[in-house]
Order: sequence, then C-alpha cells, then structure tokens
Amino acid sequence: MIVELISVGTEILLGNIVNTNAAYLSEQCALAGLSCYFQSVVGDNEERLSMTLKCAMERSDIVILSGGLGPTEDDLTKEVAAKVCGRKLVTNDMWMERISEFFAARNITPTENNWKQAMVPKGAIVLDNPNGTAPGLIMEEKNAKVILLPGPPNELIPMFEASVRPYLEELTPGALYSQTVKICGQGESAVETAIKDLIDAQTNPTLATYAKTGEVHIRVTASAETVKEAKKLTKPVVKELKARFGADVYTTEEEVTLEKAVEDLLLANKLTMTCAESCTGGLLSARLVNIPGASEVFKSGLVTYSNKAKRKYLGVKKGTLQKYGPVSKQIAEEMVKGAAAASKCDVAVSITGIAGPDGGTKEKPVGLVYIGCSVKGKVTVKEYHFSGSRAKVRDSAVAAALTLVRRCILEYISDLTFRKKS
Amino acid sequence: MIVELISVGTEILLGNIVNTNAAYLSEQCALAGLSCYFQSVVGDNEERLSMTLKCAMERSDIVILSGGLGPTEDDLTKEVAAKVCGRKLVTNDMWMERISEFFAARNITPTENNWKQAMVPKGAIVLDNPNGTAPGLIMEEKNAKVILLPGPPNELIPMFEASVRPYLEELTPGALYSQTVKICGQGESAVETAIKDLIDAQTNPTLATYAKTGEVHIRVTASAETVKEAKKLTKPVVKELKARFGADVYTTEEEVTLEKAVEDLLLANKLTMTCAESCTGGLLSARLVNIPGASEVFKSGLVTYSNKAKRKYLGVKKGTLQKYGPVSKQIAEEMVKGAAAASKCDVAVSITGIAGPDGGTKEKPVGLVYIGCSVKGKVTVKEYHFSGSRAKVRDSAVAAALTLVRRCILEYISDLTFRKKS
Repeated sequence: MIVELISVGTEILLGNIVNTNAAYLSEQCALAGLSCYFQSVVGDNEERLSMTLKCAMERSDIVILSGGLGPTEDDLTKEVAAKVCGRKLVTNDMWMERISEFFAARNITPTENNWKQAMVPKGAIVLDNPNGTAPGLIMEEKNAKVILLPGPPNELIPMFEASVRPYLEELTPGALYSQTVKICGQGESAVETAIKDLIDAQTNPTLATYAKTGEVHIRVTASAETVKEAKKLTKPVVKELKARFGADVYTTEEEVTLEKAVEDLLLANKLTMTCAESCTGGLLSARLVNIPGASEVFKSGLVTYSNKAKRKYLGVKKGTLQKYGPVSKQIAEEMVKGAAAASKCDVAVSITGIAGPDGGTKEKPVGLVYIGCSVKGKVTVKEYHFSGSRAKVRDSAVAAALTLVRRCILEYISDLTFRKKS
Repeated sequence: MIVELISVGTEILLGNIVNTNAAYLSEQCALAGLSCYFQSVVGDNEERLSMTLKCAMERSDIVILSGGLGPTEDDLTKEVAAKVCGRKLVTNDMWMERISEFFAARNITPTENNWKQAMVPKGAIVLDNPNGTAPGLIMEEKNAKVILLPGPPNELIPMFEASVRPYLEELTPGALYSQTVKICGQGESAVETAIKDLIDAQTNPTLATYAKTGEVHIRVTASAETVKEAKKLTKPVVKELKARFGADVYTTEEEVTLEKAVEDLLLANKLTMTCAESCTGGLLSARLVNIPGASEVFKSGLVTYSNKAKRKYLGVKKGTLQKYGPVSKQIAEEMVKGAAAASKCDVAVSITGIAGPDGGTKEKPVGLVYIGCSVKGKVTVKEYHFSGSRAKVRDSAVAAALTLVRRCILEYISDLTFRKKS
C-alpha cells in the first residue's frame, strides 16, 4: 500500500521550524510496511491545500495530513479536507464535552473559535487527543483513506501510536524489516563498486548506500508477510556484506555509532583511552564523551593547540618541532607517545593537521592531517589528505582517528590471540 | 517570484534523516524575498521525480532540487532534470580535472562511477563545490530556473551562500535587507516579552525571534526599493533592540558566532584562554577551535573526565573530591584555578556537571552543571540547571560557559577602565 504525507503550515515553508513530524511519520509508515513515494508541504491556503490533497488521493492509498487543526482563523486543514471529500462538518457532542472539560480543568473559559474544533466531517472516524483540543480524523473515501493529525509533535506522536498505527496495521498485509551495515574507512563509490552486482540484482531485499563523514552505511530492506520472514530474507544479504567488507564493518546495529563501537571494543578488552588533539581541538574527545558511560574507558584528553602546550603536556621536543614542524609524522608520533605516557592509558590517539582555511603551503596543504595511535606501546602513524571546509576537515580527521584506533585495537587483539595460540 | 523546493532521497521518505536542507533553503529563500508555496520530497525514482519536477516548473518560477547528485547508481537527479529540460549530458573538462585532483590529493584512484559527476547538462551554469565532487547546476528554462544542489549540508550550504544566493538576489526585484541581533544569556520567552510592543506594532521592518541553544536571535527584516533604503529602515529598530538588551547583545553580524565574539574580545584585549572540561568532554575547546585563527588566543584545553585526570592535570585536591564530589562549586573552582596556573593563560574556564541520562541523584540531578571562570586571577563560579538529553545538557553548558566568560571579560575591562580613570 502507498502512503503520502502532507504537512500543512506556513512556518515550515518559511523555514521557521524543521519538519520533524514528516521524519517521524515516514519512519513509522515504513515500519508498518507502507511505501511512501511522495511527501509535500503546503501553507495554510485553501486552493493550494485542496490541489495537493486531490493529487495525493489520486496516486496514493493513504494520505496523512498533519497540522492546521488548531482553533484559529488560518487553521483550515479540516475544512478543506472535508470539502475535497464532499462531507459536511457536523458538531461532535463527545468532543464538545472534551473541550469543555479541557478548559474547565485549566479554569479557562473557551473562546468562540475553540468550539470550531468540535466540528468534524460527517461520518469521519474521530481519534482521541489526550494532549490537546483538536481531534484526529479519518475519512475512508473510495480511492483513499484520508487521515488528519494535529501539528504539535506532543499531540501527533501519542495519537499516532494509540490510534493510527493499529489502524494502519489492519490495512497492511505485509511487513517490512531493514538492517543497516555500517562501514568505516571506505568511500561511498568504492563501496558501491564492491556491491554493484548485488545492487543490480536486487529485488527483495533492496540495498541503499548512505555516505556519512568517514563512513558508508548500507541499508538492507526486505518485505514479507511477517517481520520474522522479512528478517529472514535480510540475513543472507547482511552476511554477504559482512564477508565482503570484513573488519571494516563496525556494526549492524541501528543505534551503534562509530565512537560507540570503539568504546565497546575498549570495554570488552579492558582497555582505557586518551587523546591528544591539535587541529580537531577536542572534537574527538567530545565524540567519545557523547556516549553514556564513556567514563569506563575514556579518562582524559589533551587539546594541545599551541606548540607550548604540545611541549608542556606531551613532552614534544623543541628540536622536532623546529626540524619537522608541528604538522608532521614525527610530531604526531611524539604526541601519541607523550599522551600515553602522561595518562598511563592503554590506548592513545594523536591528531595534528592543517584544518584551514589558511596556514597551508605547497608542501603542507590545507587538509593534511597526521594521526597517531598507540596501543600498549605499539605506535602507528598515518598521513591523510582531507578536503572541504575547516569543519569538514576536522570532522573527517575525527572519523579517521576513530577508524584507525579501531583497526589498531583489532590488530592488537589478533596478535594477542595469535601469541596465545603459538 | 515563487520558489519551490524538491528534496530527492529515499532516506528522507524512509525517515532515516530529518530534512534540515528544506528548512535551511526555505529560510534563505524567504530572506531573499521569494515566496515558497510548495515543498516536496521524492525518492530516487525517475518517473516520480520527473513528474514532480514538471509540475513544479509549471507552477513556480524557480525550482531548487537537493540531493541525488552523488556518484552512485541510485543518484539520478541530474539525469532526470536534464531529460525534463531536454538537454544532453556532456562532459565538463574543468570538472574532470577537479575530480582527478580531488582523488590525486588523497592518493586514491577514482572508480568508474566517479567520472559520472563530471557530466553536466548542455548549457547549464556549473556551480563550484569546494567540499565535494558533485558540481551544482543551474538550467535556465523558459518557464522556470532549475537549480540542482548536492544533498550533504556541508556541501549544500557553502554552495548556496557562495553561488545561489547572489544568483537569486539578481533575479528578485526590490530589495530585502535583514540584520540579526544575537542575544546570549536570556530565554526566548523573556526576550519576546521584552519586545512584545515592537512585535505587535511591526509592519516594515518585521521582527522574528529564533531560539538557539543558550541564545536568542532576533531577525529584523525590511523591504524597500534598494538595499540601501531597506538597510536604513532596519537601523533604528536594531538600535532600539541594542538599547533594550544591552551587554547581552553579543553581535549584530550574521557571521559572528558566540565563540567568535568571545575570541574577538580576547584578541582585542590581548588575552589568552584555556579550558578544563569534564562533562562537556572537549566541546567547548572544539567550538573555540572552530574559528580560523583561534590559535591567537586559544592555547590549550584539558579534558579531565576522570577524577585522576582532574588531580593530575589541574591539581584538584583529593579531599575536595571526597568532601564535595566532582560535580560541585568547589571542584569547578579548583579546576579553573588549576587550569589557569598550569596553562599560564589570562582566562580559564572550567565545566563540571551531570550530563545524564544516568548518574543523577536527588541532591545532584541530571542537568546540574557548575561553570568556573577566571580572568587574571579573579574567579567566578556559577551553578546551572539544564534539561533535556545528554547532548542538549552538554550543548547548553558550552553556551553558558561562553556567555559567562564573555561577561567576566567585559567586567574585567570595565573595572580596568574605571581604575584607569580614578
């Protein structure tokens, strides 16, 4: 079944608010096994709203409108939808009562226009709204089901969960299940090329790639009679992707981020971590601390932006700074060794680079970054070239650092198990 | 002139990402004096995309599409738009070079599909993309101008500002000028109450308030024949706002952020700064380093997440930790004093708090944060109570720290000038 979303509100067209309702409803509809091909936003304007609704009812089975159910003059979603569906607005006694109760409870006398909210299209299914005075509405037309929801998320979400989701589940026969394979340290086109055959052959499940900074996510989505069956269909594809990308797959869990994967790895191996940052200025530490419970593994970080700070906190040598400059393989190495020594942490990461926009030279252009990683004394330093704005270079450096530290820890573990074996 | 937005991407239809590009573009178009009546979202599907584009070109003067310009199989916005506009795709030599350089700089050999991005519709205006490999494109058709932008915000926003905004300004008759008065340390409702009379009386210029974390921005927008005249209309209103909010107005310049205002203040007074962060884990340092040239004033930062690190790097006393706990006025004070002493910087800031979701108690709930500030030895410590998610609490703490350090420096300066006078 095909669902279409129409968000009503001039404040969205003006960019005063971000349309998070659409994101919520899209995700919920996908989970309910509905295909969403179109979403649109229109202002509180009768002609344009009715044009949009008519078009949606022609091409989709279910149309969900959100917003414009308020008591004010410019709220006209209900009036327009009723007109398009050829239904009169009639007073709903139950809702009249709800409104009186709502205001009585707040010791407010309702204004004239509040009663407007008790008017509902003839024969419409009325959905309860425990958090507001606008009822939700469902009109079952021949060609499409038209669902009206209030705009405020704190009214829309509970109403969707209590009334709309069960309604949709009754309508939809099949189920949809999707799983995301998250890859670090590879570019989107490289990933695309590596799975071109799978994409070309895809039917059910389908594959889609999403590029993130320093990461690529592949979403595998299957549809079937039940979620259980859909899940079963995705399994072999996810397994194949894991086989193709090996250790670069850092998770297949929706909620696990790259920094979470690194911290889980540290925790599982009882390792602690520190970092010494120059051009990223604390971004790596901040990402690690994003994760609740980070304190188990992340102990401290040093933002050694000036050379003086590099020397004071990390014991970087004056001679090395003079000979190679602060952005060099040698300094990244001294930084990471210094951070490991000062913090006594098992794992240390250092980042030094030229984030730009200024400060680049022919030999050392903007975007040149050196990242050092030390795991139990084993030091690795890599050179990177990132492009884009100052912010982009710094974000890329942080993602690369997380990718590098993850790889170094994995190597350390495999060496360890190897040594144990032999 | 009427503009219409089309966001292309299955990930939006699936609710995997929130459509922030649409909010950004809506706001920018409104500022450029364009009316936006429709926005839509379609997936990476030729038939539906071309249907949507054709419809948009009939009812709007300008159509801005975002997303689907990537190198992968399912990116087909450019191909579909060219087809709808009846244009062939031709190789753009300049962009071929750009792509080779982009990959050469990274020592990566581009894959076959990368070159797809150098194909542009015949006769299209090519917009530079310093942050990616997809060029922006403008096709000037008889009935409408069709503008194609890449989906990633870090590519779309810089491209809009550098190339699209000037292009739109040339198209729109009359002139619009807006200036933003940025206020820190006051809540949105307090600000709105303070200017209710101005909002009620507004005609031209108009006022709009935008709540940001720890800040409120008031945008004053005037329309006139020329920018010069529009500018003239905004002046008295901006002056009035400055008078009402006094020192809480940290800038009236679009590009100046709170951290930039703080660094300008430091630079103007030849002061250096450091910070010691616990719950914010480097976010404050990272925001300060966001600003190019930060190294002039920001020297180092310490992320002392563990108690051990607080003691080692900041000389926080074991007894104080045991008696008052790491989240206390006393520790914030010892942290800031320790940071100032260790770094020898003129200004130091410390942050310690409970970001949640766990770790809160009845006495010390989640959201409790202490921020310390030391300017030339004069120490101030304040207690804050923030609400929301872990991320929200941390962002609020960083904004509050920037607000506090700004106030302390301003006090220091006024004391100084006072002492000089007397």
